[in-house]
Amino acid sequence: MKTVVLKFGGTSVGSIDRIKKVCKIIAFYKKKKNRVAVVSSAMSGVTNELVNKSKSISNNFDKAEYDTLVSTGEQVSCALIAGRLKHEGFKSRSWVSWQLPIFTEGPHSSARISSIGIKELSGYIKTGGIPVITGFQGIGKDLRITTIGRSGSDATAIILAKFLKADECIIYTDVDGVYTTDPRDYKKARKIKKIFYDEMLEMASLGSKVMQPTSVQDAKLNNIDVEVKSSFVKSSGTLITGSKKSFSNQIITGISSTKNDAKITIVGVKDKPGIAASIFRPLSKNLINVDMVVQNISQNGKETDLTFTIRAEDLKKTEKLIKKNKSISYKELSFDKGLSKVSIIGVGMITTPGITYRMFKALSSKKINILVISTSEIKISVLVSAKNVKKAVAVLHKEFKLD
Amino acid sequence: MKTVVLKFGGTSVGSIDRIKKVCKIIAFYKKKKNRVAVVSSAMSGVTNELVNKSKSISNNFDKAEYDTLVSTGEQVSCALIAGRLKHEGFKSRSWVSWQLPIFTEGPHSSARISSIGIKELSGYIKTGGIPVITGFQGIGKDLRITTIGRSGSDATAIILAKFLKADECIIYTDVDGVYTTDPRDYKKARKIKKIFYDEMLEMASLGSKVMQPTSVQDAKLNNIDVEVKSSFVKSSGTLITGSKKSFSNQIITGISSTKNDAKITIVGVKDKPGIAASIFRPLSKNLINVDMVVQNISQNGKETDLTFTIRAEDLKKTEKLIKKNKSISYKELSFDKGLSKVSIIGVGMITTPGITYRMFKALSSKKINILVISTSEIKISVLVSAKNVKKAVAVLHKEFKLD
Repeated sequence: MKTVVLKFGGTSVGSIDRIKKVCKIIAFYKKKKNRVAVVSSAMSGVTNELVNKSKSISNNFDKAEYDTLVSTGEQVSCALIAGRLKHEGFKSRSWVSWQLPIFTEGPHSSARISSIGIKELSGYIKTGGIPVITGFQGIGKDLRITTIGRSGSDATAIILAKFLKADECIIYTDVDGVYTTDPRDYKKARKIKKIFYDEMLEMASLGSKVMQPTSVQDAKLNNIDVEVKSSFVKSSGTLITGSKKSFSNQIITGISSTKNDAKITIVGVKDKPGIAASIFRPLSKNLINVDMVVQNISQNGKETDLTFTIRAEDLKKTEKLIKKNKSISYKELSFDKGLSKVSIIGVGMITTPGITYRMFKALSSKKINILVISTSEIKISVLVSAKNVKKAVAVLHKEFKLD
Repeated sequence: MKTVVLKFGGTSVGSIDRIKKVCKIIAFYKKKKNRVAVVSSAMSGVTNELVNKSKSISNNFDKAEYDTLVSTGEQVSCALIAGRLKHEGFKSRSWVSWQLPIFTEGPHSSARISSIGIKELSGYIKTGGIPVITGFQGIGKDLRITTIGRSGSDATAIILAKFLKADECIIYTDVDGVYTTDPRDYKKARKIKKIFYDEMLEMASLGSKVMQPTSVQDAKLNNIDVEVKSSFVKSSGTLITGSKKSFSNQIITGISSTKNDAKITIVGVKDKPGIAASIFRPLSKNLINVDMVVQNISQNGKETDLTFTIRAEDLKKTEKLIKKNKSISYKELSFDKGLSKVSIIGVGMITTPGITYRMFKALSSKKINILVISTSEIKISVLVSAKNVKKAVAVLHKEFKLD
């Protein structure tokens, strides 16, 4: 008998009708003689409504009260799901996080789950009950309610799967899986059947909205197979796994691209130890995310050129911060907007030489100029002009046989 | 230093603006050097919205899930109030009922509070904090969330006042106190400054919407002085108390009236022991509330006439139930709609003879026909035609010097 954890996202339970449909999915797993546990997010829109209420109460709303406030969203959806399952004749009940309890560590609104009490829950599941558990939340040592950040319901499901020793964790959402590249931008994108944790981590970090990087990390650390599926259409999803069984010998698994990046070059920086830290410290303090960084070799051991990328909306703020930074001296600042980062991802590149060459050749065949390059073990990213991004994705998708 | 429990009803916290105003009221008490604890209902409308959701999920929604669902309403309002108090510089935090905990006994949706854990709470209040506690709810022995019925937030406040040994419990609501009679129906109605528990119990049972009878009973049993005030207008409210200090020597405290009663007379019932029970059993099973009952003395020891009143909307159902009741035999059934019950209430009547006479004389002076009479120690009720009810209230209000 398999144990499965089913997680439903906000749009999946976004209305009374959707909740009824979700209960049919749960019933399907139950009728196949599985042991089933359900984790649910708040109905879509509800959390935003609560957040807006907190904003109109205070522009600096207390974080502990914020968690108490927004955590009601999952309590509502879980009670409704359990109520519907009971209506349909199943044994079911809701579990609010404090009832298990789900203990968390760390600050309000961005806590992390440290343990889940499953004693009562396991017994309930064994006797055929379907528990419906509030995602996204827990309680701290002081018994106050904490939340684990947006998309935290995925983390709840994955860590619950670990504690329950579940065979599978299935994340139902509004997309039907992970694609080789964004299907809205490129028609020939294909759904990926299986993807390694590390690849998914890169995809998530590089803009794939399917899962948060931290949730992928949770799955990887706990070695939980996660399947991402749509609750709207019937089709198989994408399995995120560490297992090497029945993987295709695809070298590149996916291609991701960002929109609206900007590039800054500081020309003629006086080179001395710690200069990069001096430049980036004020940016970090102002929550500006620096992505790709390239430093030219000092030509005379005295001066260097430093190039880095940021999100375009941070450009003005970044310019100001650099200009008022007294701890650095340089000759010139140059800026470039309207850029995109295109990345190819795949564990296959570790064992396959020549991937970088094939990537650059493919891009150059379409006369696409590469502005910055950044690589990791399983990823190569290039910065190109935003006007070239579709062309770049298309040529790479074809080059690496993803079409 | 006084300890006060402030309770705010749904309309008092019905919007973000209202919550801000309520926080000004709380600040007022705090600045007067009181120790303050707050109990809040859900924002008005929110509970109904949640109830509607449960109804669209199932026409027989599970009671335990129902309580889990609707109890989120108070969690939201309490987090917002505490958040606002913090914004204004006060030390404050919300307490969800399970965090204290508030333990209840009895079935879901109509549980009663059995105990409140105040250890942490008392310390918090002593160090100047303002706790904001969810009304209307608690947890059972199984740690599942229970609710204590509509208007249960009053009960939470009153029982919290008992456990905290508070000096006063102030119920803020959308009316500014208890009136001698309904001010919408009779312009000369006056606000009552002080009223005894027993009088308030009768007023509540007889249709005054200010407080639920069970809450008045809780206050009486625990000897808690309760003040009912408006959170919308600044004015003194009504004190509900058992203390005899500084009471006026008014004989009658208030007059209440119902709308839309009906009267049924069963003529020529075969009189035998248990006949009344045989008649009323099926009505009780169908949740039809029988109010005044008059049985004529058996004229020949064999037959009797039985008259009783019910709400007019139950008339058809009652007629059907009597007609299909095989355990009784009678000659005739008669019905009368469009009736009202007018009651005078006051502990003064215990020690003052002749009140009944004065009531009947006053009514007869206006040619108002009395159909049924029912009395208790501190109340006399008469059934009159609904068209006479305003006239009856007016003449009685004047007769007993309430104008």
